[in-house]
Amino acid sequence: MATSSNPPASATFSARLAAAIKQRRTPACIGLDPRRESLPPALHAATASDPKALAAVFTRFCCDVIDVVAPLVPIVKPQLACFEAIGPDGMTALAEVIAHAHAKNLLVLADGKRGDIGSTAEAYADGWLAGPWAADALTVNPYLGLDSIEPFVKVATDRGAGIFILVKTSNPGSKDFQDLKTDGRTIYEHVAAGVEQLAARTAAGGTYGAVGAVVGATWPRQLDELRAAMPHTWILVPGFGKQGGRAADVRGAFDASGLGAIVVSARDVIFAHARPEMNAGLADDQWQTAVDRACRDMIERLAADTPAAQLK
Amino acid sequence: MATSSNPPASATFSARLAAAIKQRRTPACIGLDPRRESLPPALHAATASDPKALAAVFTRFCCDVIDVVAPLVPIVKPQLACFEAIGPDGMTALAEVIAHAHAKNLLVLADGKRGDIGSTAEAYADGWLAGPWAADALTVNPYLGLDSIEPFVKVATDRGAGIFILVKTSNPGSKDFQDLKTDGRTIYEHVAAGVEQLAARTAAGGTYGAVGAVVGATWPRQLDELRAAMPHTWILVPGFGKQGGRAADVRGAFDASGLGAIVVSARDVIFAHARPEMNAGLADDQWQTAVDRACRDMIERLAADTPAAQLK
Repeated sequence: MATSSNPPASATFSARLAAAIKQRRTPACIGLDPRRESLPPALHAATASDPKALAAVFTRFCCDVIDVVAPLVPIVKPQLACFEAIGPDGMTALAEVIAHAHAKNLLVLADGKRGDIGSTAEAYADGWLAGPWAADALTVNPYLGLDSIEPFVKVATDRGAGIFILVKTSNPGSKDFQDLKTDGRTIYEHVAAGVEQLAARTAAGGTYGAVGAVVGATWPRQLDELRAAMPHTWILVPGFGKQGGRAADVRGAFDASGLGAIVVSARDVIFAHARPEMNAGLADDQWQTAVDRACRDMIERLAADTPAAQLK
Repeated sequence: MATSSNPPASATFSARLAAAIKQRRTPACIGLDPRRESLPPALHAATASDPKALAAVFTRFCCDVIDVVAPLVPIVKPQLACFEAIGPDGMTALAEVIAHAHAKNLLVLADGKRGDIGSTAEAYADGWLAGPWAADALTVNPYLGLDSIEPFVKVATDRGAGIFILVKTSNPGSKDFQDLKTDGRTIYEHVAAGVEQLAARTAAGGTYGAVGAVVGATWPRQLDELRAAMPHTWILVPGFGKQGGRAADVRGAFDASGLGAIVVSARDVIFAHARPEMNAGLADDQWQTAVDRACRDMIERLAADTPAAQLK
């Protein structure tokens, strides 16, 4: 697309992700899911009476969270739905949040679960990974098939970016279609086989490729099996914290050196002001301290119960 | 969400769609997929040097197309990827295009193929169907399962809006996962069974419900089978024209009265200035006449070869 403007990254996404994880010594990824009704009282979101004002509050909240977590974690994951929900002004806020995360030396994974065919897939890939949004990675939905994923792979590898393809999602309803079996293998195992092929093809001699998988923290057994079945594949693990996954549950997503996975927590960290154990002794305007405590707590739990302890 | 602002529609989406189809006597849906490299030379897109200028060109192009097709067809389908690809300014353009389509009495189907779980799915549903974007319908990806679709169904039925769930997509790669078989039925047939249940549940005594299906024009046999298997389900049929589907191929998507389906053409109509047979005798600044010719040609072909001839 003629709208592309950023120079190609000088290293692959996989190399940049591994370096960032090692530098912070944690695979923790903080989800940026701003929701008006959950924001710290100090931000007065309830008084934001129009979309532009609310978008400004979203920008400030996410940037304030970024300032706290940037020294601690390698990557953040903005949830596109939360920004889209407030309209065009929300999308402007999202662009500002991505730029601020990059300025603070964080990698950015745009969680949009996009998917389409041909030139439409190219437009998504180009916009999110090469063009104006300039995220480092994007989540992708595989339902449309492997030819719908190829445009994302091409743009990602051209630009030193990555994609994470939905394999086995954290919700109970993931059983409805993902768990159906063909030839003794579930649909998500068929998808995983396709993902691993793409990951191996894009690994460029390294351990991991530009194509990763999304597997929910709610499925510890499947994480073990999929780690073994996808040796070249980064695994993005949502569902840690609020959705019920514990550190021990996500152990299987890692390789022995503590690489191979990133683990996401969103609400438990960004809305930590609402958790009494994180908010103890804090005034309303000290909500960032609660975020700091919750982020460090997540990092400690991952270090205690997973191979992330090996990171150095 | 507190950002919702539009009043609920007074009739169901299905009733509004059926009325609009009968009023125009065609099931043709025009896809709005603005692409810089394909725009009419008269719009000077090549000289739009920044995203804001390019977004303004997209807005003007789409609104000019809308002015031509609004008296002829019931519904337009903006392709979200094309607007996202140029960044936040593109999203502002999209909002302007949706508003102009509504002002011209067109229904608007936002083609975003969104899908996520729980409160994230709610955020998408609320933003696109109830909130600032205020589309009449949205395309949804079913990979995450039925519980991921429920929030879309709830918002859609609450607001007199609709959703169209991907069942069997038009691309060759749709075979990779959609065609895998469990218990003698393909995955897309499993998805279709779920869609039909939701459609029947939301039909409110009418023939068709608020939940539709997407089935590519490239699969005539499957259109026949799925029409029979989903008696309460509107079928959105992309892939007409450029992607190879002909009017006779989409015949099976309709019921005997000519309802039950909408058929999409995008590039063949909106970029008709590039088709010699539509552009004959026209100067560069008469590109809207080519759009008019191509739109009428599509409508005539559907009337000649499908039950849409019965519409009155």
